[in-house]
Amino acid sequence: MSSARKAVTLLSGGIDSTTAMAIARSEGFEIYSLSFRYGQRHAVELESSKKVAVSLGAKEHLLINLDLGKIGGSALTDDISVPKCRTEAEMGVGIPVTYVPARNTVFLSLALAWAETLKAADIFIGVNALDYSGYPDCRPEFIEAFEATANLAIKAAVEGEMKIAIRTPLIHMTKAQIIKTGIDLGVDYRLTHSCYDPTPDGSACGQCDSCLLRKKGFQEAGVPDPTKYTA
Amino acid sequence: MSSARKAVTLLSGGIDSTTAMAIARSEGFEIYSLSFRYGQRHAVELESSKKVAVSLGAKEHLLINLDLGKIGGSALTDDISVPKCRTEAEMGVGIPVTYVPARNTVFLSLALAWAETLKAADIFIGVNALDYSGYPDCRPEFIEAFEATANLAIKAAVEGEMKIAIRTPLIHMTKAQIIKTGIDLGVDYRLTHSCYDPTPDGSACGQCDSCLLRKKGFQEAGVPDPTKYTA
Repeated sequence: MSSARKAVTLLSGGIDSTTAMAIARSEGFEIYSLSFRYGQRHAVELESSKKVAVSLGAKEHLLINLDLGKIGGSALTDDISVPKCRTEAEMGVGIPVTYVPARNTVFLSLALAWAETLKAADIFIGVNALDYSGYPDCRPEFIEAFEATANLAIKAAVEGEMKIAIRTPLIHMTKAQIIKTGIDLGVDYRLTHSCYDPTPDGSACGQCDSCLLRKKGFQEAGVPDPTKYTA
Repeated sequence: MSSARKAVTLLSGGIDSTTAMAIARSEGFEIYSLSFRYGQRHAVELESSKKVAVSLGAKEHLLINLDLGKIGGSALTDDISVPKCRTEAEMGVGIPVTYVPARNTVFLSLALAWAETLKAADIFIGVNALDYSGYPDCRPEFIEAFEATANLAIKAAVEGEMKIAIRTPLIHMTKAQIIKTGIDLGVDYRLTHSCYDPTPDGSACGQCDSCLLRKKGFQEAGVPDPTKYTA
């Protein structure tokens, strides 16, 4: 029986969550990766998640179906156009329409449920507060508040068996630093997917915020971008 | 167009959530009730939820599928026996096996997502800290922490459009007080369901903690119990 500590890692199959998972692995954790089919138009990311989970040696990869489309309120789940070709200045203003209401709260809640069942005290999430898309639930103050809530919510914490830590190793990194860190840890970014609005065959649009941040990250990291963009 | 304020109410179809919803209605809210098919063995409660939603005039009733059974860790979703015929002293010790990991965190997160989409600042949840089953996520300190997290999580709060309030009108009531309050507000408790371990035809076992608390509540309220128990 393994004596490794367990970690639940939220895995979207993008650069950030993949790198966060590689960091968890480098710390010696036994990895339980968690992905969600939540009605996202870029459900192709779920294929990436599976490949990343295998590649990084997850002990188990769990996919939960969750119909956030019924709730709506986002360009990622509704019939609202994903913005294209925005400048960095435009991205820097406000919260974009790709925001999904309470997404990280929902995802962390389910990660928390699984963490308690597995007796995994560490939950990794690849949020970062630099080079991000302006989402409020990627900020350190949100993460700290969620962690405090988690430790009041679950039986294992209240009974003193474990204390949940929400681990955000990327929170103060630029996208370029994230990519360099991942490369050092052996991440194969060809397996990852970032695009919010892929073509039916899964190719990246090259123009949504997520593609633009990805391109810029590889450029600034001085690493060849393995992604095939349609534009 | 209605100018009523909107509220999201978490509705399991039991006494508590139904009464909390009746209180929300009595305060003049337009009600959006939310239920979950989460792999619970007592999924018959979902029928009760629908009937209650109609009976109390919900503007909309939303059922979200959510497979907590994949996560496990509870007698309500797994193949673990629901305890029967426990005394009050036994119920008062520890957190029972019917505890579902992080359930209220998950449910409130999804209520939060819907609340933001609807522009509903109030979320009602029928937790109570007296005559309850010892679940940590029914305590006031958990609710306060979740509310603080919610207001850091969502765009509408961060941008100052609204402030989320997690409303727990039952939190300091006994089961008897809850029932009396509901009766005063015209609740038809025949529509509600409490049993954790119903027979295949949906009848209440009469012996699980939830049935025992229900029986005691009606008894202490001096109100005839409309439930048909098999034992």
